[in-house]
Amino acid sequence: MTYCVGLRLDKGLVFMSDTRTNSGVDNISQFKKLFTWSIPGERVLTIMTSGNLATTQTVISMIDERAKAPEDRSPSILEAPSMFEVARQVGEMLREVILTSSPTGMRADSTFDATIMLGGQIRGGEPRLFLIYPEGNFLEASEDTPFFQIGETKYGRPIILRAFDPAMSFEDAVKLLLVSFDSTVKANLSVGLPLDLMTYETDSFQVGHTRRIKADDPYYMAVSEGWGDALKKAFNELPDFRF
Amino acid sequence: MTYCVGLRLDKGLVFMSDTRTNSGVDNISQFKKLFTWSIPGERVLTIMTSGNLATTQTVISMIDERAKAPEDRSPSILEAPSMFEVARQVGEMLREVILTSSPTGMRADSTFDATIMLGGQIRGGEPRLFLIYPEGNFLEASEDTPFFQIGETKYGRPIILRAFDPAMSFEDAVKLLLVSFDSTVKANLSVGLPLDLMTYETDSFQVGHTRRIKADDPYYMAVSEGWGDALKKAFNELPDFRF
Repeated sequence: MTYCVGLRLDKGLVFMSDTRTNSGVDNISQFKKLFTWSIPGERVLTIMTSGNLATTQTVISMIDERAKAPEDRSPSILEAPSMFEVARQVGEMLREVILTSSPTGMRADSTFDATIMLGGQIRGGEPRLFLIYPEGNFLEASEDTPFFQIGETKYGRPIILRAFDPAMSFEDAVKLLLVSFDSTVKANLSVGLPLDLMTYETDSFQVGHTRRIKADDPYYMAVSEGWGDALKKAFNELPDFRF
Repeated sequence: MTYCVGLRLDKGLVFMSDTRTNSGVDNISQFKKLFTWSIPGERVLTIMTSGNLATTQTVISMIDERAKAPEDRSPSILEAPSMFEVARQVGEMLREVILTSSPTGMRADSTFDATIMLGGQIRGGEPRLFLIYPEGNFLEASEDTPFFQIGETKYGRPIILRAFDPAMSFEDAVKLLLVSFDSTVKANLSVGLPLDLMTYETDSFQVGHTRRIKADDPYYMAVSEGWGDALKKAFNELPDFRF
């Protein structure tokens, strides 16, 4: 499994992904799931992937190939005029890869399924965040739904629902994401550290902070340990129940 | 969907279940999922159900019929000599109902699947808590795993992992369960109030507190609102992240 979260803040976008890939519980590997393409000053595009690794790696390679070979007949996401068009192209590639892999065509429960999150900004437009389904269609984050999660989303959702605020700083957003990831890692073996982090500041048109957070990262450890105590304290402060 | 939790405390057992049943999102009903049979002074047996409603209702009816008709050739759970034997009987009934309903026999993804939690105490034994699978086999809660969840378990799991303590009082256990249920209800439409609560005190051999907690229950509302603030406060108290 996988856990990735993309936040749409007033200040820009924040992406975090884990790096664990497993086939069963005894075939665990570490793979990058956060990828960035940029033309500094003009566009920054970030993709996070969940689902079948063969599918997502193929999609990423296709994007890379097309980004490198402008003579390719298929348009490159580095040339697409808008984020919407990038989402459409990535969705099309994803759909194509899944269709090709599944001998019986696309089914709702295809084992070759994958879901992709795409965020970024192209000069002339706003920063946008998309959730792209295996079928190639997609949703866009809005004021009502200012974040997306993919993969093993449930354990870490309640804290985001409660504490997310679009006006928060990048630093607070990272703190929130670490709490959400820590709750997930503690509950589910298929999500694991290190975590990849990237921020994008609106209208900067360049990659912001990037960091790989390892299991022995002092701040992660402080959050992980502190959150247990903080939760217990919060729990104790709630009014007591009486029969 | 459904959400049910059974806790094995030093003091006894605590059960909580929601009451929402849905088939899709537009066919929502309220059904009891917590059932108790007892012979005061001798045994108390509690069952919570999740999964296909036709399956679980049939199992409950079979238990009722057999409990009422002692001449029935099948043994009744009220006569079984041990909790283990009760678990075996309930597992057998569950398996039988699913097998009968599925024209092609039992499959891992049968739509007639259901999972049952069974807890209680029979004089001469300890209080025990079992998780019974659609296949009829079962797990027992132990010191290492002193609680079970069935249904929509993920949203409400992190807080139980962090705050559960077998030495806690029934009152604190109810508070913990309400926080866990509230996180689930806020994140998932298929789990809904009212909640059914039951406690069983070790060696009492009688049903303890039972309560139906409705959405307008003042304590539930206090927990639900207070938890959001408490979480935000806990979050703010964590050390700040710096790039």
